[in-house]
Amino acid sequence: MSASEFELIARLTKDLPSRADVSLGIGDDCAILDLGGEMLLLATSDSQVEGVHFTFQTSSPEQIGRKALAINLSDIAAMGGEPRYALVSLILPLHLSLDVLERVYAGLRREAEQFATVVVGGNIAGAGKGEQLIIDITLLGVVERGHALVRSGAHIGDTLCVTGSLGDAAAGLYTLFHPDSAYPQEAQEVLRTIYRTPHPRIREGRILSRFGPGIVTAMLDISDGLSGDLSHLCERSHVGARIEVARLPLSSALRSVGASAGRDPLYWALHGGEDYELLFTVSAGNDVAVIEAVQSATGTPITAIGTISSPGEGMILVYPDGYEEILRPESWDHLRQ
Amino acid sequence: MSASEFELIARLTKDLPSRADVSLGIGDDCAILDLGGEMLLLATSDSQVEGVHFTFQTSSPEQIGRKALAINLSDIAAMGGEPRYALVSLILPLHLSLDVLERVYAGLRREAEQFATVVVGGNIAGAGKGEQLIIDITLLGVVERGHALVRSGAHIGDTLCVTGSLGDAAAGLYTLFHPDSAYPQEAQEVLRTIYRTPHPRIREGRILSRFGPGIVTAMLDISDGLSGDLSHLCERSHVGARIEVARLPLSSALRSVGASAGRDPLYWALHGGEDYELLFTVSAGNDVAVIEAVQSATGTPITAIGTISSPGEGMILVYPDGYEEILRPESWDHLRQ
Repeated sequence: MSASEFELIARLTKDLPSRADVSLGIGDDCAILDLGGEMLLLATSDSQVEGVHFTFQTSSPEQIGRKALAINLSDIAAMGGEPRYALVSLILPLHLSLDVLERVYAGLRREAEQFATVVVGGNIAGAGKGEQLIIDITLLGVVERGHALVRSGAHIGDTLCVTGSLGDAAAGLYTLFHPDSAYPQEAQEVLRTIYRTPHPRIREGRILSRFGPGIVTAMLDISDGLSGDLSHLCERSHVGARIEVARLPLSSALRSVGASAGRDPLYWALHGGEDYELLFTVSAGNDVAVIEAVQSATGTPITAIGTISSPGEGMILVYPDGYEEILRPESWDHLRQ
Repeated sequence: MSASEFELIARLTKDLPSRADVSLGIGDDCAILDLGGEMLLLATSDSQVEGVHFTFQTSSPEQIGRKALAINLSDIAAMGGEPRYALVSLILPLHLSLDVLERVYAGLRREAEQFATVVVGGNIAGAGKGEQLIIDITLLGVVERGHALVRSGAHIGDTLCVTGSLGDAAAGLYTLFHPDSAYPQEAQEVLRTIYRTPHPRIREGRILSRFGPGIVTAMLDISDGLSGDLSHLCERSHVGARIEVARLPLSSALRSVGASAGRDPLYWALHGGEDYELLFTVSAGNDVAVIEAVQSATGTPITAIGTISSPGEGMILVYPDGYEEILRPESWDHLRQ
């Protein structure tokens, strides 16, 4: 999402009325709705537009279907929730063959099954003269009362952590748009696979939500790039952040393709979008226990990449030699061009 | 929705896995989800595509926004539910001005407020090279446990009833596509208003759901035309239906525009889409009480238009002189052309 899209949403939804049973409305990864039961309801929507978010030249139909659901699953993960029900809206261009459509849907079903999520509704509409396949999914999930993790709870002194590695998806996309036989083949395939079929961090999010917001104080998923999403966390929590550059988890695949392409892998890690990793903060003194719990249960590496600081500091990159630099959010849309 | 779209959904969602907490999945107006509380959750999605479902030449931006939500509200009404939360996904073409977009959203907000519904989430995406505005809404609502009204409960001998009048929206659309200064102006405006801003029958549905499915045995909303939606009810309930033609509620506006246009108003009433009236069945002996309860509370006319018969009979039109004719569902898409 570009900066202008955030502004547009803010403008359209300004002074939107609410209801007492809406625990959290627009502005986080999911809405939180209180229907009175033990579990709170989570709701999120995200769409994928052919030619904007995917192309049939760079992903298979199955991969496109999987990813359309995965990006929504990632929003449920970002609240610490358990996904349950999907509503799938398809806008179909005339030229799309039934075979391709069935393969898209098969990918989507496979992703759903992997996360115990069922398709309970949706809609199919013809695109008329439109030529793009559009997949718009609403995903509903649940989270235990008092255990939803939101963007706004980070405090000064908290440790900033991230799951997995950063920048791989952006580098994978780069190799698709700038093909070069010089890239190391295996590393290129690793990065492209992460771009095409991101793995939503549902299990990791569930473990983090068990600690509750007193310990895991804030969380969101990285869809727009670390710099962009960290800025959202800082804005909503009214804090700043210091990132230790040397700690950023850069995969060996990212480093080797970066070297081969003559591109700085750090740039992808800081600003590349579509990581779909979780970015979260842990209250002081609890970071070792939390990291250990998630790593031992899931095998996913968790890295402490910095600390939460005062809002006046903004976002700062700290290099190994002590040099400090302001980190400015860059829009993912900008990167794609 | 055209017949081929129903077939497509059936094909894509064949053998879809379910979960124990999904009381009703794909195939009705809403999914019914059981989160364990007193109320069951209702979920529905419907999209409006520029050039397919609406044009800026035939409706104002505010009307387009209102209707995009209204058609979803109608699906909640069709289950007897109370609407609560909307997620609004917009796909925006480059040429769309901010002013027009704000007017679409204002219409949507107005419709939401009228039905105590709040926008809790959604998404905005650029259409890239696409030139159509697409509004895809997921609406969540609730209904008391044991009070959801579904399509599958009609029994032989039940009375078939409908709210409001039939065919007005289709006739209104006809006057927009076939303008003629000879149409009676006032009647034309009435019909066009119904087409542009249908009134979802939430209050009527709520009263019907209080009777429960033992009395109001089946319900759905008429979006594809009486013949099409009655065929869905018959199919899901494994019944047939006999409709008394003389009883069909045709408005005076419909009759006068039909006469002026040289078109049979009965055709619009039987096959015209987008009525967004409720079609429901009432168990034998209860029809007078149910009709009276809804009419007195809402002022909306309710008409008994026929009776449920055995499945072998199919759908039959009974004319005043006793002549009988098979009623075949006609697709709304066909009508539009």
